[in-house]
Amino acid sequence: MSDTYGKSVTLTIFGESHGPAVGATVTGLAPGVPVDMEFMRGQMEKRRAKGKISTSRTEADAVRVLSGVYRGAATGTALTLVIENTNTRSGDYTKTEELLRPGHADYTAHMKYGGHQDARGGGHFSGRLTAPVVAAGSIFTKLLQTKGVAIATHLAQCAGIDDAPFSGDPARLKEQLDALNAADFAVLDPLRARAMTQAIEAAAAEGDSVGGILETVVLGLPAGLGEPFFGSVESTLAALLFSIPAVKGVEFGLGFGFAGLTGSRANDAFRMQGTRVVTATNHNGGVNGGISNGMPLVLRTVVKPTPSIYKVQQTVDFAAKRNATLQISGRHDPCILHRARVVQDSLVAFGLADLCGQHFGTAWQEGTAWNMD
Amino acid sequence: MSDTYGKSVTLTIFGESHGPAVGATVTGLAPGVPVDMEFMRGQMEKRRAKGKISTSRTEADAVRVLSGVYRGAATGTALTLVIENTNTRSGDYTKTEELLRPGHADYTAHMKYGGHQDARGGGHFSGRLTAPVVAAGSIFTKLLQTKGVAIATHLAQCAGIDDAPFSGDPARLKEQLDALNAADFAVLDPLRARAMTQAIEAAAAEGDSVGGILETVVLGLPAGLGEPFFGSVESTLAALLFSIPAVKGVEFGLGFGFAGLTGSRANDAFRMQGTRVVTATNHNGGVNGGISNGMPLVLRTVVKPTPSIYKVQQTVDFAAKRNATLQISGRHDPCILHRARVVQDSLVAFGLADLCGQHFGTAWQEGTAWNMD
Amino acid sequence: MSDTYGKSVTLTIFGESHGPAVGATVTGLAPGVPVDMEFMRGQMEKRRAKGKISTSRTEADAVRVLSGVYRGAATGTALTLVIENTNTRSGDYTKTEELLRPGHADYTAHMKYGGHQDARGGGHFSGRLTAPVVAAGSIFTKLLQTKGVAIATHLAQCAGIDDAPFSGDPARLKEQLDALNAADFAVLDPLRARAMTQAIEAAAAEGDSVGGILETVVLGLPAGLGEPFFGSVESTLAALLFSIPAVKGVEFGLGFGFAGLTGSRANDAFRMQGTRVVTATNHNGGVNGGISNGMPLVLRTVVKPTPSIYKVQQTVDFAAKRNATLQISGRHDPCILHRARVVQDSLVAFGLADLCGQHFGTAWQEGTAWNMD
Amino acid sequence: MSDTYGKSVTLTIFGESHGPAVGATVTGLAPGVPVDMEFMRGQMEKRRAKGKISTSRTEADAVRVLSGVYRGAATGTALTLVIENTNTRSGDYTKTEELLRPGHADYTAHMKYGGHQDARGGGHFSGRLTAPVVAAGSIFTKLLQTKGVAIATHLAQCAGIDDAPFSGDPARLKEQLDALNAADFAVLDPLRARAMTQAIEAAAAEGDSVGGILETVVLGLPAGLGEPFFGSVESTLAALLFSIPAVKGVEFGLGFGFAGLTGSRANDAFRMQGTRVVTATNHNGGVNGGISNGMPLVLRTVVKPTPSIYKVQQTVDFAAKRNATLQISGRHDPCILHRARVVQDSLVAFGLADLCGQHFGTAWQEGTAWNMD
Repeated sequence: MSDTYGKSVTLTIFGESHGPAVGATVTGLAPGVPVDMEFMRGQMEKRRAKGKISTSRTEADAVRVLSGVYRGAATGTALTLVIENTNTRSGDYTKTEELLRPGHADYTAHMKYGGHQDARGGGHFSGRLTAPVVAAGSIFTKLLQTKGVAIATHLAQCAGIDDAPFSGDPARLKEQLDALNAADFAVLDPLRARAMTQAIEAAAAEGDSVGGILETVVLGLPAGLGEPFFGSVESTLAALLFSIPAVKGVEFGLGFGFAGLTGSRANDAFRMQGTRVVTATNHNGGVNGGISNGMPLVLRTVVKPTPSIYKVQQTVDFAAKRNATLQISGRHDPCILHRARVVQDSLVAFGLADLCGQHFGTAWQEGTAWNMD
Repeated sequence: MSDTYGKSVTLTIFGESHGPAVGATVTGLAPGVPVDMEFMRGQMEKRRAKGKISTSRTEADAVRVLSGVYRGAATGTALTLVIENTNTRSGDYTKTEELLRPGHADYTAHMKYGGHQDARGGGHFSGRLTAPVVAAGSIFTKLLQTKGVAIATHLAQCAGIDDAPFSGDPARLKEQLDALNAADFAVLDPLRARAMTQAIEAAAAEGDSVGGILETVVLGLPAGLGEPFFGSVESTLAALLFSIPAVKGVEFGLGFGFAGLTGSRANDAFRMQGTRVVTATNHNGGVNGGISNGMPLVLRTVVKPTPSIYKVQQTVDFAAKRNATLQISGRHDPCILHRARVVQDSLVAFGLADLCGQHFGTAWQEGTAWNMD
Repeated sequence: MSDTYGKSVTLTIFGESHGPAVGATVTGLAPGVPVDMEFMRGQMEKRRAKGKISTSRTEADAVRVLSGVYRGAATGTALTLVIENTNTRSGDYTKTEELLRPGHADYTAHMKYGGHQDARGGGHFSGRLTAPVVAAGSIFTKLLQTKGVAIATHLAQCAGIDDAPFSGDPARLKEQLDALNAADFAVLDPLRARAMTQAIEAAAAEGDSVGGILETVVLGLPAGLGEPFFGSVESTLAALLFSIPAVKGVEFGLGFGFAGLTGSRANDAFRMQGTRVVTATNHNGGVNGGISNGMPLVLRTVVKPTPSIYKVQQTVDFAAKRNATLQISGRHDPCILHRARVVQDSLVAFGLADLCGQHFGTAWQEGTAWNMD
Repeated sequence: MSDTYGKSVTLTIFGESHGPAVGATVTGLAPGVPVDMEFMRGQMEKRRAKGKISTSRTEADAVRVLSGVYRGAATGTALTLVIENTNTRSGDYTKTEELLRPGHADYTAHMKYGGHQDARGGGHFSGRLTAPVVAAGSIFTKLLQTKGVAIATHLAQCAGIDDAPFSGDPARLKEQLDALNAADFAVLDPLRARAMTQAIEAAAAEGDSVGGILETVVLGLPAGLGEPFFGSVESTLAALLFSIPAVKGVEFGLGFGFAGLTGSRANDAFRMQGTRVVTATNHNGGVNGGISNGMPLVLRTVVKPTPSIYKVQQTVDFAAKRNATLQISGRHDPCILHRARVVQDSLVAFGLADLCGQHFGTAWQEGTAWNMD
């Protein structure tokens, strides 16, 4: 069940880049959970390709709900949504079908599927599969919002340029999350946004691409989610985040920054804040022993530069089994971070909703916000 | 099933640090797979506490097999192994039971289990649960060895001191893996080993602790393992690795080093090597599109400094719901990296065995090495 | 994941009777498995409503494959197929929406989904959901055929009329299976077919309905499939068969006929047949200790009479919470056995394919028939 | 994961009849659920062999809890319990190890495990594995009792002799369930008990064995449990019940008695009873559309006669691959129904607890009885 993830709620994705459609099925939704198509469209819009910093392949990405929704709310049975592929130009791929694209899954798909894969446009490996992830994820993002949980992601680094850090002040932090969710290009400092955009355009002009780091903060999460060991918050979210094509690293809190610290520097002291237990610092990024502690959840992923570049590359002709060169044509993203951030939000929302369901049962989806005090 | 992981093979762990025993159940082993108790003992020995750089609590860690083994081989039905807890001194914990230890799961366990958890020694959250992980993992490590797959981990960084890097020469690399697996303190450069040990002892002398980075290399893995998206090699291994207490980040290949690169620098060119397809560089750490490509698998985890330190710390008395100070007594590790590396090896072995089973079926466990040419 | 079943292969179904579409997703197919759309159409045709013995709601039931098939074969990634609902007359239901139909899921759906269910036409509980089961199942039925495994079901009893029993002669038995699979109304004795048809029509004329027993035989199955306890052949197939609406009992071999026997009468003696081990009798229906023994698999389900009848019935008005009477209108089947038999075939095929995958790995789907000698 | 079952709670069993121990692991228990060792012992006692109607192998069956229980209650982490095998006489089996016992799993185990199975005493296929099922099941039986759910099973038929039927009067029915749970030999009519016992002894005297039917009634179950299709109450319980060695059929409500009825006879009319919806009859055995309707759950299994008989039987020498005769020695049950009924209770309790957990979340395990009005 490699295309399915989740325990209390599940997400299954299907489709190929140049097949008839891509889509997703969600199970485990509580009956009555609102399915807000307007909010879904807004989330899809964040993922859409726009301007010179994205591919020129644009899809309407109209989402059709086939099942599981009645009168605007989840019925509680399997919810399937489908997005037709309309703007496919498979011809772009045929001439290079046997020339393995470096950094892509062409070779590994061959080794796994023995030639039966739909190789056009990356097939099932395509970033296009993240469209149904965002559509389905929007239901969970919205659901968590109604519980007072806010999620947002910024481009913490892009093309070597750092964004400003998140604020340490809770009220300001919440404003930053809201601003990111309203923004087209999700950075905290508008000046850095311009610098990043210029760097992406410069790379694109050279037929090259750039990578970076996506940092996500979640506010309002109750303590007690997750499990020791295999079902930890980190394990659950990392498995989802590593499913984003191009993500090659995931860290929580200080992450790799922990390596050089001593325990006395790294530990987060507990303190009472009124009747709530909080930590004086948040080095652990909201997770202790695999379980949420009520502090902001902080995680980062590294997104490698898009492997589709227009420069001439050395590769192998898999049919002829000999060395060859490749120059990729077609329509590609010089950078995917600004589109991928809503994918990251969506997977985090899904993963947290699954953990909530495991902890609180289906009933958590009903009613109003948690009382955390 | 938060204590269970795996699809074609499963691993379930149970037990509490100061309960009667800890143990593990493995399902999905092919009938006839050898269970080498001598090899298991050797792996357990690597995990044992030794010298001034470890806790003074030592356990015999004798593994008793309750089921699933007959005449030295797996029967194919559930294999359960148990390790009795013999050297427990719960008294060390009672006086501070309500004083939440910073960096530990005391608070989150309270929030998750509502006071019903066995809090003594961390209970189910204890690093002691990694003992059955190593015992069970030894079966998979050995099994992969018979297929020509070698796994080894070194302390790439400890207490701020870097080890030498792995060799780029395949023959030399294999020697390095063998040496690491024969070593007590797994580093590539003996001089760095001495420096690390001294740094750990110095931290211990101050009642403090240190962290670092564990880097694992796997040789001999066939191409084609793993799945696009949720079942990727990275997702599968990361979920396992994040279940190691103290791991706060996981990366593959260049990992976070990808952030600043361009696509033209980051892509691994394909080349023919005889009849095999290889990559000229291995920035992707042996994984493309979530699937193994036959190159060495390279991954790193960051291990935060042990949270149990002897310095006075600020915390909260959870019963009285007020601020307090805590000075931890008991027996604790000033560094766990040298013990944790075999836990990492074990979980990687288990995860890869699971992926092999998904790809090749149970039959992969039988017969001899893959012919990769 | 209540809408998903399976381990090595999975089947997920979605949709509501009067929603936009019904469909299914299959995962775990080996790359290259043929997807024979012509065979699929034939199987769908067996399930279609026909004549006076079926509902007058007829659907074209055109199956559209959205993903997972390329050049006529499975890619190995999620295969989703969709059947649009075209002939819906929801008006038939609105006036009785709150009058619970006896024998149906109207009441239990209310209690489970709290009013959020799509109640039109039974919604997700509708027999219409068996359409995608047959479509998806056809892939497995065909696959097993290529391995030499034949599956067929007859109406062993319908409206109180018994069909002739299966032949004890293997060659004749195989002919009977082929004949059943070619027949519209699957009985072994044509005279009984006429009697059953007349009995169904007579019941229909009175606004009533009939039930019966479906008996399935599977030939050519290798020994060694299934597991002791929870994964037994019986457990796996029963869980699937009880998901057919109206099935209230499942038995294997002599089934409930075992109750009055002694061990000496019930045991199947083993005998050598050339180099193969066979049993002299087949009271156990091809399964010992939960595992297939290579003899014909024999199972029976009881299908209760269709609860939708046109007679006046006593019931409850769920909105008003008071007793009421109900006279069902709309279009309904006076008997579903002749349509359900291909649903039973399909679920048996799916269940066996899953067990084969667990035993042989994905690779079993490739190549040719097993050599059972 | 063939040795594991369940979604919200899981049950894993391990062990072989003549290995060191048998045991079980339970996950998903809510923290704080009482683990009543006295009640567990009582349930184990019901399963113990007693008198001439059972095997002379008796085991102390002392249950040792290794993990997951602290201060008399579940911690919420994996609960493992172990029962040592003490009274093993493997010598009884060695001489016939290659003579396949008819009706047993000797042959199929060979075909599945290729000779690596522990064949002594049936190994993992042994009825001895039901001991940990009862031990673990007692936790769920007790838990359901505290919610007002009562479960009991009687020998509805044994050796061809029918017990009296359950009463249709609710108050009397509850008394009957209590009496069954207090009885050693679970029948409703003491005269039939004597007749059955005599018939078992008569069969035993001839070296033969008998079978029968176990009927279970569950009172107090809330409406709304289970799922349409694959997760139906019937699917969930049937998969568990078919894992009992010797069960060859499962039916709900009228079961196979539905075959000859018309819809107008079979349908259960809904009626108001105060503010509750009930059915006038209970032909569907408490389940509509796969979901509990609040009426008594009624199910029956058929238990084939114990295959271990002392008469000379025809069989095959699997090593020599030739026909042979077999006379079984050792210690065996001439009838298992009176011991198996508590196994059936235990599995039903486990299955219902799992369905409750899926519907209500873990929280259902806490607090008191449901308010069903």
